[in-house]
Amino acid sequence: MSVYKMTEIVGTSPAGLEQAIQEAVGRASKTVRDIHWFEVKEIRGTVKEGQVGEYQVRLAVGFKLDD
Amino acid sequence: MSVYKMTEIVGTSPAGLEQAIQEAVGRASKTVRDIHWFEVKEIRGTVKEGQVGEYQVRLAVGFKLDD
Amino acid sequence: MSVYKMTEIVGTSPAGLEQAIQEAVGRASKTVRDIHWFEVKEIRGTVKEGQVGEYQVRLAVGFKLDD
Amino acid sequence: MSVYKMTEIVGTSPAGLEQAIQEAVGRASKTVRDIHWFEVKEIRGTVKEGQVGEYQVRLAVGFKLDD
Amino acid sequence: MSVYKMTEIVGTSPAGLEQAIQEAVGRASKTVRDIHWFEVKEIRGTVKEGQVGEYQVRLAVGFKLDD
Amino acid sequence: MSVYKMTEIVGTSPAGLEQAIQEAVGRASKTVRDIHWFEVKEIRGTVKEGQVGEYQVRLAVGFKLDD
Amino acid sequence: MSVYKMTEIVGTSPAGLEQAIQEAVGRASKTVRDIHWFEVKEIRGTVKEGQVGEYQVRLAVGFKLDD
Amino acid sequence: MSVYKMTEIVGTSPAGLEQAIQEAVGRASKTVRDIHWFEVKEIRGTVKEGQVGEYQVRLAVGFKLDD
Amino acid sequence: MSVYKMTEIVGTSPAGLEQAIQEAVGRASKTVRDIHWFEVKEIRGTVKEGQVGEYQVRLAVGFKLDD
Amino acid sequence: MSVYKMTEIVGTSPAGLEQAIQEAVGRASKTVRDIHWFEVKEIRGTVKEGQVGEYQVRLAVGFKLDD
Amino acid sequence: MSVYKMTEIVGTSPAGLEQAIQEAVGRASKTVRDIHWFEVKEIRGTVKEGQVGEYQVRLAVGFKLDD
Amino acid sequence: MSVYKMTEIVGTSPAGLEQAIQEAVGRASKTVRDIHWFEVKEIRGTVKEGQVGEYQVRLAVGFKLDD
Repeated sequence: MSVYKMTEIVGTSPAGLEQAIQEAVGRASKTVRDIHWFEVKEIRGTVKEGQVGEYQVRLAVGFKLDD
Repeated sequence: MSVYKMTEIVGTSPAGLEQAIQEAVGRASKTVRDIHWFEVKEIRGTVKEGQVGEYQVRLAVGFKLDD
Repeated sequence: MSVYKMTEIVGTSPAGLEQAIQEAVGRASKTVRDIHWFEVKEIRGTVKEGQVGEYQVRLAVGFKLDD
Repeated sequence: MSVYKMTEIVGTSPAGLEQAIQEAVGRASKTVRDIHWFEVKEIRGTVKEGQVGEYQVRLAVGFKLDD
Repeated sequence: MSVYKMTEIVGTSPAGLEQAIQEAVGRASKTVRDIHWFEVKEIRGTVKEGQVGEYQVRLAVGFKLDD
Repeated sequence: MSVYKMTEIVGTSPAGLEQAIQEAVGRASKTVRDIHWFEVKEIRGTVKEGQVGEYQVRLAVGFKLDD
Repeated sequence: MSVYKMTEIVGTSPAGLEQAIQEAVGRASKTVRDIHWFEVKEIRGTVKEGQVGEYQVRLAVGFKLDD
Repeated sequence: MSVYKMTEIVGTSPAGLEQAIQEAVGRASKTVRDIHWFEVKEIRGTVKEGQVGEYQVRLAVGFKLDD
Repeated sequence: MSVYKMTEIVGTSPAGLEQAIQEAVGRASKTVRDIHWFEVKEIRGTVKEGQVGEYQVRLAVGFKLDD
Repeated sequence: MSVYKMTEIVGTSPAGLEQAIQEAVGRASKTVRDIHWFEVKEIRGTVKEGQVGEYQVRLAVGFKLDD
Repeated sequence: MSVYKMTEIVGTSPAGLEQAIQEAVGRASKTVRDIHWFEVKEIRGTVKEGQVGEYQVRLAVGFKLDD
Repeated sequence: MSVYKMTEIVGTSPAGLEQAIQEAVGRASKTVRDIHWFEVKEIRGTVKEGQVGEYQVRLAVGFKLDD
């Protein structure tokens, strides 16, 4: 029976929502093997002089634990 | 007096969030005429080798019922 | 001690989620100086003939109050 | 063992909340036999020149599935 | 310093939402003195032959505890 | 691209829920032009001697910002 | 018009979820006649040496008030 | 790109939570091919003479739409 | 198997949050033996001439039922 | 019939939660007369070198609108 | 003063909800000593040919941190 | 592009809410460098003989991941 662990990560990017998600997923994959899925928990961002500065997307990522 | 029905659909796309939304909306329009609006309920996705595999966006779509 | 105010705004755009967010942030910046951050509260949209018409993103934006 | 299905419907009426609920319930009953109960999920409405235009009540209605 | 207690009650009425609220408030007042306020927690109802049978409004009512 | 602002208002009335909503909508329309829609956020009320004293309905009202 | 009261109870059992629910329902029935339904609000539990110690299920139970 | 539809169903069983889930899943499979997953939305039940009468588990079930 | 009951209480104090919590817990202990834990459900307060008048903390308190 | 408006404000203070609340309430009272109550929506804070830097309490404050 | 850490884990089992919970708790205990309690966050599952394939229970588990 | 990780921790203290928060933040800082912010998720506590025993504050703390 598989068991999965969830970790919460915030990816940031000035480029857009998908880029912020990919930042988070890519960084998490450096430490954890076998990430299977992610869930978006929150979308926030910073603003500078009337422009979006960066997007901040909080994800829960799920990965399989070794037996 | 108009009456509307809501249906819940999950669109998927490797390309991005808007594409996943459009997949869902487009597919729903094959079966149901007169979809007026959608609401995003959940954003999830799959991960493969440190990259987002596909975005999964769950929508509630609302359409008008005939009288 | 800083005090911040939150205002709720809905930005719309046919182009995508980031554009709708930028519309809201840009418009709010015309009236209010010193917007620091935003939080996405809701994502909705309209549908026309099986295509997304416009994205509607509801934001809470936070700005610093003068002392 | 009974099994029930839930469907989400939005009833509208300029007259009031109960009338919007009845609109939704009545319309749903044209298509589905044996609706047992409803649950209010959301109450919204339109405004025209400072007056409520119509009430929009989103319901989940539950009906029994045939065996 | 005052202390208040909250109790949860469901009032029912075929006549409408306000009547269901008043049923609950009136019945609670038979047992508990000094009810100050109520909060609507849920609105449901029954359906019979395409008509609303009764409205069911779940309230939290708050009353002052004696010192 | 239209941008909308949301404001939160509590209307009160001893007469009923629709009247409390109309109080809030009508009062908001004195200050803000072009209110398009409202959403009910909370329903509360006061109780006096076993009777509902007044209904208090908290609304978010949305209006269009000038370009 | 019937009026119902809701009470919140936590049942516990090392045997399983259904047993914890039955513990709560059975105990509540000693004090209150005429419990009609329950709703699960929360599921928690204790852990001892890598094994579930006991399941703790928080229920809201609803019973009819005498007229 | 796959598109999925979600439907909400309530399964009931006097035997336990898993049985109520299986009732719902089994009944839904009579009408809809290709159900992939379910999500538990609510757990309720009836009580008779101090005993659980039946468990009622509300599920959202997801199935793949044909292209 | 232990069974616990939850009761909802609002403690108030002009002095601070902890004092409002203690007011609620202390008052509840006059009526109910064996309160084990509390959970904060809501924090509100009154304002008078630009100063916090009193803090109002709504608690759920849990106590053990006799067998 | 009174109508109230809600505004969302974030007060900050290194001293504690009550001080952050008072900062928000005091600042809001400079602009708006007749603030009646507040509700805590979120508690956050900053951390510096293992110590809480400042508490950030988000409040909704309610004040009476002139007739 | 004790400090606890929460970790989120998904246990899976074809046998039932309690077995899925025990899978998660047992696996977490291999890595972390001193798990005290768990909280169920979500219940999902897979479906194969009209039968529940496996139950997936997402837990938050809490354990004591060494001083 | 920065990436942050969130961890959930429960701090406890008999002294008050701020002390419980500081306990959690201080303990987390022993293991993790560069904690930036915290968010309060839940406030609970124990009761002994009518007095608050200890406050338990559940926090999500966010810290920056090395590149």
